[in-house]
Amino acid sequence: MEALHKKIREEGIVLSDQVLKVDAFLNHQIDPALMKLIGDEFAALFKDSGITKIVTIEASGIAPAIMTGLNLGVPVIFARKQQSLTLTENLLSATVYSFTKKVESTVAISPRHLTSSDRVLVIDDFLANGKASQALISIIKQAGATVAGLGIVIEKSFQGGRAELDAQGYRVESLARVKSLAGGVITFID
Amino acid sequence: MEALHKKIREEGIVLSDQVLKVDAFLNHQIDPALMKLIGDEFAALFKDSGITKIVTIEASGIAPAIMTGLNLGVPVIFARKQQSLTLTENLLSATVYSFTKKVESTVAISPRHLTSSDRVLVIDDFLANGKASQALISIIKQAGATVAGLGIVIEKSFQGGRAELDAQGYRVESLARVKSLAGGVITFID
Repeated sequence: MEALHKKIREEGIVLSDQVLKVDAFLNHQIDPALMKLIGDEFAALFKDSGITKIVTIEASGIAPAIMTGLNLGVPVIFARKQQSLTLTENLLSATVYSFTKKVESTVAISPRHLTSSDRVLVIDDFLANGKASQALISIIKQAGATVAGLGIVIEKSFQGGRAELDAQGYRVESLARVKSLAGGVITFID
Repeated sequence: MEALHKKIREEGIVLSDQVLKVDAFLNHQIDPALMKLIGDEFAALFKDSGITKIVTIEASGIAPAIMTGLNLGVPVIFARKQQSLTLTENLLSATVYSFTKKVESTVAISPRHLTSSDRVLVIDDFLANGKASQALISIIKQAGATVAGLGIVIEKSFQGGRAELDAQGYRVESLARVKSLAGGVITFID
């Protein structure tokens, strides 16, 4: 997606060979117009997939997910990283280790909002080692729902998450595929 | 805002005299079309306020904030509740106590994204005791920026947050003002 590639080139900061900082438009400050374009792109890619729900993780996945949901006309559920006192019922949950934050957290979704008849599109801001995506897939399967595909804003293709999802047979659509950050230079696939 | 009142009446769950659960459309599952209406309403209310930035807190503030930012054509910054390894610079921060989660957390914004020339609209999902709003106001002031107003999706008017903001002279626009949850009945102001 050219508008996204351009934004990453202009405003992304390479912190190391592994870490791309996009706090200027995605992870801290958010560009709503770019999120709209991203949501429209995901919606176009998955419009024939019979999506009934979108699932993401707080916090950075919410903006692209909500724009996709607006276009497709379906609700968005964001998995919570810790249990709040107003989420009191039994929860569908999975653990996820964040390499960026170096903490393991529990992500959870209320079973009230996800049923076995749902066809779910997973949306997330980053795909790196795939731990977050695998946790969401686990939760969706616990609900008996179907994973119809994954929409990723930025994929770090040099890490193992994409290959694992491909091997599992999931449809993955990444709008920017970063081949390498070596030497501080951002190289895309394609 | 009638569409919001209707949604709260139909899908809100009164957990106690103090706690209204709106996980079906705002705090866990999100209704994107309703968020669009909410964003358009905030944008209409503040269109003449010279807003240059929107500030909210992760996670439930992001959806209404991003829809408001899309309409007004301005970036959205979400304050983070804990410091991540990719937010490495000096941060503007404030502590906030959540009565719902019964934890104190530090919320932070990078000074790179907020400057003294900014006129900021604060958007949040709930206004109860006002601790989150006061933390965001503190951060905005630390940046030397101007608080142009606050847009709240649901105000619990029987708690002290609104009165404190009024006394401080801030413009507060709440789309639903809950007068009481007593006896499990939701009563609105107006």
